[in-house]
Amino acid sequence: MNHNDTIRLIAKTLQNMEKWMDEADAHAKAKSFDVDVLAQARLAPDQYSFVRQVQSACDQAKYAAAYLAGKQPPSHPDTEQTFAELRQRIQKCLAFLETVQAKDLAGAEERRVAPPWLGGRWLRGDDYLLHVAIPNFFFHATTAYAILRHNGVGLGKMAYIGSIPATEG
Amino acid sequence: MNHNDTIRLIAKTLQNMEKWMDEADAHAKAKSFDVDVLAQARLAPDQYSFVRQVQSACDQAKYAAAYLAGKQPPSHPDTEQTFAELRQRIQKCLAFLETVQAKDLAGAEERRVAPPWLGGRWLRGDDYLLHVAIPNFFFHATTAYAILRHNGVGLGKMAYIGSIPATEG
Repeated sequence: MNHNDTIRLIAKTLQNMEKWMDEADAHAKAKSFDVDVLAQARLAPDQYSFVRQVQSACDQAKYAAAYLAGKQPPSHPDTEQTFAELRQRIQKCLAFLETVQAKDLAGAEERRVAPPWLGGRWLRGDDYLLHVAIPNFFFHATTAYAILRHNGVGLGKMAYIGSIPATEG
Repeated sequence: MNHNDTIRLIAKTLQNMEKWMDEADAHAKAKSFDVDVLAQARLAPDQYSFVRQVQSACDQAKYAAAYLAGKQPPSHPDTEQTFAELRQRIQKCLAFLETVQAKDLAGAEERRVAPPWLGGRWLRGDDYLLHVAIPNFFFHATTAYAILRHNGVGLGKMAYIGSIPATEG
């Protein structure tokens, strides 16, 4: 299970997220409400809104790719308010993930990752991916999905998982 | 990022889940309601309840470990109704994960994994872990967490992530 494959899994899930937003658009249209009402929806008053869940998923993706490749993460300010703006945020994130190639990730497992919030401590690249990036990315993606489901958007598990590289026979 | 480390990450998250249930117990006691009311709570009428989210997280963990190690997954019937029974289910799952050792996972990346629901198709072990086990496991864990948060249980992100193997200096 290599680092490049993991970054591509994360990119696939961000693309799935855009499809959940398509379903939210269709639901809002069918029920005659403004889809951007859902941008501020949340599951608990002290949990992040949909906007911030999507921003956070993008950030987890961006930092994982940047830290593991030893690249500078691009700045993506959290200014989005609407579904249209969130789609642009996802596209910016995907464009950055595209710039991180398999060769950039060679040796990533032993790279020292020292994000500011660790206060001077560091993690091996492998441990950053496993204990920080993967659980956090899927936390924010799943919570974004759950906010839409809770508000009646018609999504099923396969919309969450997306395509699977299965082989016949 | 090896397969054994990934199984241990999943085990850690199941242990975190038991701590979320401790917080739910404390919340229920403080509010004078039966915690098992939360066992049937769900975020949408056509989404799984808390019980089934925990059962599903355990199943994703169990199948990932069994398939990647080429072992027979143990049968854990979905009979749980209460928090006490769910704790036993998590313990049974953790006990099975303990039996899967690093040496059992040697070569797991290329092992053919053909779960019944793929209808005769198969995935490389690596692809099963990345495209099925990890996203599904964290989906069910996060949704279980979200159901508790939605019902007022006092949980924060560090309760979700748990311990991180960071190094000083």
